[in-house]
Amino acid sequence: MPEFRKDPVIDRWVIIAAERSKRPQPARIAGNVNHAEACPFCRGNESMTPPEICVYRGPTTRADPSAWQIRVVPNKYPAVIGEGDLSHQREGLCESMTGIGAHEVIIESPEHCVDMAELDEEVIENVLQACRDRMVHLREDKRWQHVLIYKNQGGAAGATLEHVHSQLIALPMVPREVGDEVRAAEHYHRKTQHCIYCDIIDEQRREGRRLVSENGDFVVCCPFAPRFPFETWILPKKHAAFFDRLSDIELVPLARSLRETLRRLHSSLDQAPFNYVIHSAPFHKPSSEHYHWHIEIMPRTTGIAGFEWGSGYYINTVAPEDAAQVLREAKT
Amino acid sequence: MPEFRKDPVIDRWVIIAAERSKRPQPARIAGNVNHAEACPFCRGNESMTPPEICVYRGPTTRADPSAWQIRVVPNKYPAVIGEGDLSHQREGLCESMTGIGAHEVIIESPEHCVDMAELDEEVIENVLQACRDRMVHLREDKRWQHVLIYKNQGGAAGATLEHVHSQLIALPMVPREVGDEVRAAEHYHRKTQHCIYCDIIDEQRREGRRLVSENGDFVVCCPFAPRFPFETWILPKKHAAFFDRLSDIELVPLARSLRETLRRLHSSLDQAPFNYVIHSAPFHKPSSEHYHWHIEIMPRTTGIAGFEWGSGYYINTVAPEDAAQVLREAKT
Repeated sequence: MPEFRKDPVIDRWVIIAAERSKRPQPARIAGNVNHAEACPFCRGNESMTPPEICVYRGPTTRADPSAWQIRVVPNKYPAVIGEGDLSHQREGLCESMTGIGAHEVIIESPEHCVDMAELDEEVIENVLQACRDRMVHLREDKRWQHVLIYKNQGGAAGATLEHVHSQLIALPMVPREVGDEVRAAEHYHRKTQHCIYCDIIDEQRREGRRLVSENGDFVVCCPFAPRFPFETWILPKKHAAFFDRLSDIELVPLARSLRETLRRLHSSLDQAPFNYVIHSAPFHKPSSEHYHWHIEIMPRTTGIAGFEWGSGYYINTVAPEDAAQVLREAKT
Repeated sequence: MPEFRKDPVIDRWVIIAAERSKRPQPARIAGNVNHAEACPFCRGNESMTPPEICVYRGPTTRADPSAWQIRVVPNKYPAVIGEGDLSHQREGLCESMTGIGAHEVIIESPEHCVDMAELDEEVIENVLQACRDRMVHLREDKRWQHVLIYKNQGGAAGATLEHVHSQLIALPMVPREVGDEVRAAEHYHRKTQHCIYCDIIDEQRREGRRLVSENGDFVVCCPFAPRFPFETWILPKKHAAFFDRLSDIELVPLARSLRETLRRLHSSLDQAPFNYVIHSAPFHKPSSEHYHWHIEIMPRTTGIAGFEWGSGYYINTVAPEDAAQVLREAKT
């Protein structure tokens, strides 16, 4: 029997309909990534990207400009641009603003690796450090209210280049999904004096059926009402609203959790394309301290269709309890 | 320069970034529809679907069970099921309900046509009539609060069978997107004593740049803040909250508008896959009269990636003013 499940935080229902997985499956959405002859993200092709914003090098720093480990560059085709002030316009019912913001690409390796799960733990630690550092830096610009860090791996997940990379977009407003979560967390905190995400973590650890793994600092679990088959979240055990306040020491277990989780997904789902997003509290809201930052990993094995667009709800053919069991037993 | 645009009704911002369309494009998301040897939706294969809920025949009714024009059948792999009562469960933070509802398929032609734009106007009129009739019928079941009618055409739009069909899902709750629209419309009505959609229609007709076409009863336009390139809406000019109160006479110009619009999209976008949804007011809310039913057509030429999942916002590389101009000039 199918089941409706409500996301514990926001007003988003999901239909868990395992029976439906028996229907004829369309072949997996084909990934069409550009296999550029010369990949602009590879070592040696640095001139193919806009000038770098920052670069992380190994301990044996050399003058050689191609001796880098991580490069952060502006997106060559940005969705938003960094110059200018926010100017609001309203004409009748039509409200618009100048499209200012920052749109950056974090190139995660100088080698042409196409799967983040294959990067070493220290490399992933460097990637996360670069993400954190960029958020710390962008917070200084008072025009931005939020930075969303996200990854598209594989054509079906929206990647246009296959070389491992993630992206960030700084915005002058708080995105709808984050705003909904923050408001719900605030409301819950007023009612209970608890953080709702801390309570979710407690429940996940006590209950155990949706838990994938944990280490001293992080919990990996399938959420109660996942939008996608094998959707998996990583949450810090210690209450923390802002991803960018993560210490260097905390980056180590986070990198371990992320790498291990990507490897579990990789081996369970035959290298399915995926997206992940880092949800962190908005910069300037005094109440955002009630929020709890986390990573949402969304494998893209199924398409999104009219029902989802029209309703804002999701049909998921894999119960998170089943997905978590597969992931717990998967190769890391 | 990119521009942020807010949907006039709900809190959904879209980034219009036309420059970004210059980036290397991934090939269109590949459609993988099952080309079944025997299509269960074709005339003669009626036994391959569950028994029909209802059937529309031509004026020369024959006893022959295969002499049908439209068949409505239960979805063979339903996301929700019709039997049982709604039972609510809550365990800690986890809220769930039995997955009851109706999930039906409207088979739009006995011939193996794969593109709704190729159906005759009278056939589309029959399809819309069947949709309306099913909604009228399902409204009688007091367990349902809303019926969402939607279409997935093409593998990239989520279709698993290519034969022309649409679907409906009746739910015991109001979907998030519809709920957000209804609440915003209510709020606007309290403030202004106007229907926000009626005001949008006035503005579209006065301004004209996003208008695609109109006839005596319906307006076709690209919304101010579209999520997708060439997203196009059809709205009744006369204020009306419920799709299922449409009269037989009104079905004629609606079918004409819908067919013409699909043909414009078809010729402008090289037969791109698409979804459409019919948004109608929830059944039992007294305030839903302030709402205004409409059809949202979403061509699926681009993928959805981490930014969209993480933010609930959209990046659209085609301004609706440009899309509307192309559509106005397109072949119908």
